[in-house]
Amino acid sequence: MAFDTPGHDTAAFGTKGPDQNLEPLTIPRRHVGPKDVAIDITYCGVCHTDIHFGHDDWGMTTYPLVPGHEIVGRVTSVGDEVTAHKIGDLVGVGCLVDSCRACPSCAKGDEQYCQNGATQTYGSPDPHLGGTTHGGYSASIVVDEHFVLRVPESLDTKAVAPLLCAGITTYSPLRHWNVKPGQKVGVIGLGGLGHMGVKFAAAMGAEVTMITRSAGKGEDAKALGAHRVLLSSDADAMAAEAGSFDFLLDTIPVGHDINPYLQLLKTDGAMAIVGAIDAIEPVQGFNLIFGRRTVGGSLIGGLPETQEMLDFCAKHDIVCDIEMIGMQDVNEAWKRVQAADVKYRFVIDMASLKGDA
Amino acid sequence: MAFDTPGHDTAAFGTKGPDQNLEPLTIPRRHVGPKDVAIDITYCGVCHTDIHFGHDDWGMTTYPLVPGHEIVGRVTSVGDEVTAHKIGDLVGVGCLVDSCRACPSCAKGDEQYCQNGATQTYGSPDPHLGGTTHGGYSASIVVDEHFVLRVPESLDTKAVAPLLCAGITTYSPLRHWNVKPGQKVGVIGLGGLGHMGVKFAAAMGAEVTMITRSAGKGEDAKALGAHRVLLSSDADAMAAEAGSFDFLLDTIPVGHDINPYLQLLKTDGAMAIVGAIDAIEPVQGFNLIFGRRTVGGSLIGGLPETQEMLDFCAKHDIVCDIEMIGMQDVNEAWKRVQAADVKYRFVIDMASLKGDA
Repeated sequence: MAFDTPGHDTAAFGTKGPDQNLEPLTIPRRHVGPKDVAIDITYCGVCHTDIHFGHDDWGMTTYPLVPGHEIVGRVTSVGDEVTAHKIGDLVGVGCLVDSCRACPSCAKGDEQYCQNGATQTYGSPDPHLGGTTHGGYSASIVVDEHFVLRVPESLDTKAVAPLLCAGITTYSPLRHWNVKPGQKVGVIGLGGLGHMGVKFAAAMGAEVTMITRSAGKGEDAKALGAHRVLLSSDADAMAAEAGSFDFLLDTIPVGHDINPYLQLLKTDGAMAIVGAIDAIEPVQGFNLIFGRRTVGGSLIGGLPETQEMLDFCAKHDIVCDIEMIGMQDVNEAWKRVQAADVKYRFVIDMASLKGDA
Repeated sequence: MAFDTPGHDTAAFGTKGPDQNLEPLTIPRRHVGPKDVAIDITYCGVCHTDIHFGHDDWGMTTYPLVPGHEIVGRVTSVGDEVTAHKIGDLVGVGCLVDSCRACPSCAKGDEQYCQNGATQTYGSPDPHLGGTTHGGYSASIVVDEHFVLRVPESLDTKAVAPLLCAGITTYSPLRHWNVKPGQKVGVIGLGGLGHMGVKFAAAMGAEVTMITRSAGKGEDAKALGAHRVLLSSDADAMAAEAGSFDFLLDTIPVGHDINPYLQLLKTDGAMAIVGAIDAIEPVQGFNLIFGRRTVGGSLIGGLPETQEMLDFCAKHDIVCDIEMIGMQDVNEAWKRVQAADVKYRFVIDMASLKGDA
């Protein structure tokens, strides 16, 4: 891959083909409307969803595709009616760039559940330019101000980017299920999502247990703030902790057997699934019935809650643990994400795209 | 089957064997302790659980077994310290006859989730006589007053009996998930549980939809108070109602595919499973994640809530729809329960056991 068009509004994109690598591409950028904010992108996180979309794993990708929904940058221009942001502000854009703003979910600030279908940052029909929306593996982006977040200047900007997806995806369910001091919370799986779940649950005052098959990941989780480690491969240890957890955050990214985890929950305990969108193995009804346990899912978070999360991060000095890469390294980085070989999120330095890195 | 010992404390029981029929048996009855209430049983409902236990479907039955946990009768004697009941009172006993009364669940009145293991009305270790507890297919029973309910005299006594299991099993989740006027509630499956779910949800002010594969059951449900019918076998009808339900009460008694039902739920909608204790078919994670939906289970109800349910029934003039039988008919009735051939619950007239029917 080579980027030889510095200064252009250039982006990387995926073409469907045998190697499905990212390549350079110049795409049109939308005009800055009255409520729009133009952002010069400085950093963009690499989310596993980018890879699924790039490879059309879910059969819903339109090419060309510019991935990236963990975007941080500086405002370069604003429309006449913009009030929330001004030129020079440090801002972020997550998974959403529009929604109907009229349905009950939007009215509540749960734009991620927009009943008319939110516009995803990439891969959604683009009402402005036609085609599909293009994401943050790009020099710049134009977004309606409602979907632009204020990024606290006190935080390490590079490490803020993945908060816009991995961060809010774990923060939102911890808040929704009312995690609080004194509770025993388990985070299942240690990756991009899990490592943020540990940080947030600990900052919310819970006693946090990393639940993992790997003793090494347990030690890593302790360094991130987990108080305890429970090896899910140790049947005796799992049995000893049966019925003791208030809440479980399940970040495993593929279908799996949740029955052993359900048995860890107290009466009225809840598990939230944030990673596995495919088929979960059969649940034994008695694991729900005996103890009135619940299993739910949770999808990123709405705009107000995402701003709350960023402000929470500033207050508690929380960012993601990241590995910086140039755009030239993305194809290799994707392979390493697929091999779970990153602690815990790659972030692309967009200066590499612009030719000044 | 013949009952030739009238006047004795006689009960039917199951022996493990090729035909697993109920037969007459005389068993010892426990002494009436200071906090105990002795009850002359007049009616006992036939629950599907009785049959599973009788046939040792769950590999946990000790023989002899006297089934029955939907018990109504009159108090014949009370211990010295009993304050809640007196001789002649109309009372009921459900699925529980004891619990630790010290754990957090018991302290909250959720004795069904006793963390030290509640004592079931039949088939649990009996701390008084040794062996296992014996249930309501019997002329009489002795129970601690805490586990004895007051039955409103205004209700049809025969039809009260199944409230003690089928009633509370459906009432409790409707209350726990806060079903209220203006909500759209679906009851899945029309049997002993489902028919009570329809009556309760309607009495709570919800718009009630019977969700069933059978048009005939739909009509039956309307007669019970359902406002609408949704045929789960009609894919177009199911798609038209996607995302429209606040709460679903799933009374299907065996493992099944809940994905089509999950898609009926609104954002933040919940489904409670009360029937299927075995394996539920794989759940697609996206059905939970996209819409923050939850699936939970619920087990009968605690003693305070069971009393509340009986008082609710008196206020709203609710009882079960039943078919009366004599004890001599129980083996045949069990076969009809297994064939779902009863509207909606058999109740045994205990006079038949005592020889005076």
